[in-house]
Amino acid sequence: MSTHDAIEVISAKRDKHALTDSQIDWVVDAYTRGDVADEQMSALAMAILLNGMDRREIARWTGAMIASGERMDFSSLSRPTADKHSTGGVGDKITLPLAPLVAACGVAVPQLSGRGLGHTGGTLDKMEAIPGWRADLSNAEMLAQLESVGAVICAAGDGLAPADKKLYALRDVTGTVEAIPLISSSIMSKKIAEGTGALVLDVKVGSGAFMKDLDRARELAETMVGLGKDAGVATVALLTNMETPLGYTAGNAIEVAESVDVLSGGGPADVVELTVALAREMLAAAGRDDVDPADKLADGSAMDVWKAMIRAQDGDPDAPLPVAKESEVIPAPSTGVLTRLDAMAVGLAAWRLGAGRARKEDPVQEGAGVIWHARPGDSVTAGEPLFTLLTDTPERFERARESLEGGYDIAMSAIGEPTPVILDRIA
Amino acid sequence: MSTHDAIEVISAKRDKHALTDSQIDWVVDAYTRGDVADEQMSALAMAILLNGMDRREIARWTGAMIASGERMDFSSLSRPTADKHSTGGVGDKITLPLAPLVAACGVAVPQLSGRGLGHTGGTLDKMEAIPGWRADLSNAEMLAQLESVGAVICAAGDGLAPADKKLYALRDVTGTVEAIPLISSSIMSKKIAEGTGALVLDVKVGSGAFMKDLDRARELAETMVGLGKDAGVATVALLTNMETPLGYTAGNAIEVAESVDVLSGGGPADVVELTVALAREMLAAAGRDDVDPADKLADGSAMDVWKAMIRAQDGDPDAPLPVAKESEVIPAPSTGVLTRLDAMAVGLAAWRLGAGRARKEDPVQEGAGVIWHARPGDSVTAGEPLFTLLTDTPERFERARESLEGGYDIAMSAIGEPTPVILDRIA
Repeated sequence: MSTHDAIEVISAKRDKHALTDSQIDWVVDAYTRGDVADEQMSALAMAILLNGMDRREIARWTGAMIASGERMDFSSLSRPTADKHSTGGVGDKITLPLAPLVAACGVAVPQLSGRGLGHTGGTLDKMEAIPGWRADLSNAEMLAQLESVGAVICAAGDGLAPADKKLYALRDVTGTVEAIPLISSSIMSKKIAEGTGALVLDVKVGSGAFMKDLDRARELAETMVGLGKDAGVATVALLTNMETPLGYTAGNAIEVAESVDVLSGGGPADVVELTVALAREMLAAAGRDDVDPADKLADGSAMDVWKAMIRAQDGDPDAPLPVAKESEVIPAPSTGVLTRLDAMAVGLAAWRLGAGRARKEDPVQEGAGVIWHARPGDSVTAGEPLFTLLTDTPERFERARESLEGGYDIAMSAIGEPTPVILDRIA
Repeated sequence: MSTHDAIEVISAKRDKHALTDSQIDWVVDAYTRGDVADEQMSALAMAILLNGMDRREIARWTGAMIASGERMDFSSLSRPTADKHSTGGVGDKITLPLAPLVAACGVAVPQLSGRGLGHTGGTLDKMEAIPGWRADLSNAEMLAQLESVGAVICAAGDGLAPADKKLYALRDVTGTVEAIPLISSSIMSKKIAEGTGALVLDVKVGSGAFMKDLDRARELAETMVGLGKDAGVATVALLTNMETPLGYTAGNAIEVAESVDVLSGGGPADVVELTVALAREMLAAAGRDDVDPADKLADGSAMDVWKAMIRAQDGDPDAPLPVAKESEVIPAPSTGVLTRLDAMAVGLAAWRLGAGRARKEDPVQEGAGVIWHARPGDSVTAGEPLFTLLTDTPERFERARESLEGGYDIAMSAIGEPTPVILDRIA
C-alpha cells in the first residue's frame, strides 16, 4: 500500500479532485488504525459532503471499509440468502414480520440490525421488548440458526467493517451524516461484508425519513444499487412513502404487537402491503419468485418461523409484552377526515415519550410510544381518541403533546387520493 | 450567552447559511473551553473554507477570538504605536531592520512575532541566531522596553487570543489553512488584541507566498483592512512580490547579517525599498508622516535602536553570528542573464538545509540557509558561484540541490522589466 498523508488527501477533495484508489485505500486503513486523526477525517468527510465523489470513488471507499474487517460467508447454507435494509422511518417495524415471512418461503434471512438514535426507531430496541430475547449472537450461532430456523435478527458484530463503525460515530457528531457517498458506502459496506446473496433496499422518502425529497432518495438508491451489483450482490431498491408513519404504532412493544397482528393474517393494510412487496423483491432477487408470500401469512407458516426465531434467541413469543405505566389520550379536536399525519411529528413524540434515545448509551422504555387511531383518509369524530400516548414517566407527556401539535390536519372531506406506499423501484 | 450545539452550527454553515452572532460567539467560546471537540471544529472549518463567510461573520468571529483572551493596552506610552504583519515569504527579514527604523522615527513598534513552519522563515528563529538574545518577555518587560527603546520583537504570550492558537494548530493538520475568513480573523484577532494603534499588512503574492495569485491576495488584504478599521486600528496593506525571494539570503544568521547591512545604510536594493516603504506606511498610519525613514538609515539612528533593542533582550549585537559547519557552491551552468529565481524553490532548499522545521517541536540550525549571488536581471557567468548552500549536516546538500533544479532560468539577454517589489496598496 502506498503511503500518503492526511493533508494531501483532504486537500485533494477540498480542491474538488477525485481521490485516487491508492489515496482512498490509505486513508480508510490509516483512519481505522488511528494514524489519521478524528479531526482530519471529519474535515475530509465535510469536503466529501460538499464536493461529492464519483461512482469509482464511492465503490473504492466501500471496498476499503469492507477490507477493514472480516467478511461473513453463507455459502455453506442449504438455502439462498436475502437481506433487507431500511434507511429508517417512523413506525417502521417491517423487518419483524418480513424476516420470518421470507424464511417461510425458503430463503434464509440474515438480518443484522441496529438500535435507534433520534426520532427513528431501531429494530433491536423493538425486539428487546420481547421477554428474554437477546440480540447478541456469535457468528456460529447465527449460521446455525439460519440453517435450522431460516431467519435471524441480531446485532452486527464488531468485526464487520470496523472503519464504518468508527466513521459513523464521527459523522454523527460532526454534521456530516447527510452525504450520499458516505451514507451509501456505510450501508453497503456492512451488507456486502455480511455476505448476503441478495439485498432489497427500502429507501424512505418524506418528513419522517432521512431523505426529504424524491430526487435525493433516488440518487441514494441508484448509488447503492450500483455498489451492490458491482460487488456481485443482487440488489433492488424500493422508494417508499415516509410522509406518514407506518401502521398505527410507533414505539417498541406496541410495534411488536402490531407485527404479530400482521403475522396472524391481520394488521394495518400499509404494513401488510409493504411487507409483502419487500418479501416478493427478496424472493425474486434470491431466485425464488415461484413462491407467493401472501400465502405464507395466510397459512400461519410465517408465524411459526417467527416463534421459532424468538425461541432460538431465548425469547418467549407467547409471554405478555411490557406495558407502559401511564397513558394519556388526545381527542380529535373536530369532526371530519384526517388528511395529513406527519411522520416526523409522530416520531418525535414517541422519542420524547421514551421509546427512543438521545445518546447511544441511553436506555429505551419498552412500553413507551404513540398509537394513532386514524390514518390519512379515515374519518374522525370530535372528542373521540385521536392519539394515545404511552410512557413510564408522565412528565414526558407535555413535550410529546407539543410535538404532535400542527402534525396533522382534519378537513371537512377527503382531499384527493392518499399517497401510495411504494413510490418507485430502482433495479 | 445563548446555548447552541455544535451540530447546529456546523450544519448551518454546511447548508450555506450565514452564522448568527450568537452562534459564532458560542462556538468560539465553547471550542476554547473544550466543549466543542476538535473533530467538530475541523468539520466547521472545512465548511467555512468551502462555503465562505460574509464580512459581518468574519468580524464577529475575529471579535470572539479576541474575547477568548486578554487584551494589551499601550495607551500609557508617550508615543503612538504601529505594527507590521507579513503573511510570510522567503528571505523575508524585513521586520529586523523595520522595527528599529520606525522606532528611530518616533513611533513605538510592538512586534509580536512567530517561529517558522515549512518553507517560510520565522522572525523569532532569525533573531535567536543573535548570541544571548531571548524571545520571551513578560508584558511588563515589553511595555518598559517600548518606552525606553521604542521597539521590541518578541514572542506573543499565551494570553492573547487562545482560541486562535488552538484553531491555528488544528487547521494546520486538517487541510483548512487556506480559508480567507480563517486566515484574516487569525491574523487580525492577534493584532487587535495586541493593542497596536496602527497596522501595516505586507501581503505576499507569488510562488513563495501563501497566496499564489493577486486576486486572492487582494481579497485577503481587503478583508483584513476592513477588520482593522472596524476595530479602530488604522490599517493599510501593501501587496508585495514573492515570486522572487527578498535580498540575497534565506536562513537565520545570514538574514540577520543582511538586515544589519540595511541598518548600516547598505544592503540589497529590494530589501531597502520594501523596508522604507513599509516604514512610511507605518509612520503615516500612526500620524507621523513628517519624518523620512530614509534619513534614519543614513544617519545611523536606526542602527542605534537596533543595538539597544538587542541588548534590552540580553543579546550582544556586536558578537560574531553563528556560521554553518559546511558549505557547498552551485556554479552557474551557463553565461547570460538570470531571468527567474523561484521563491518556493529557494525556500524549500533553505528548509531542507536545516534553516526551517518540519514539525513545531523541531530545532532549527542557526547557520543554515541559501545565499544566491544574483537576482533576476543580473548577469551570470558559467562556472562562477550562483548559489552557496550552508548547513551543519552535509547529508542535507543533495535534497537542497534538488529543490533548486528548475528553480531558475538563465537567458541570453534580459526579458522585459523585472517585476516591481510593491504590486498594490489597499487602504
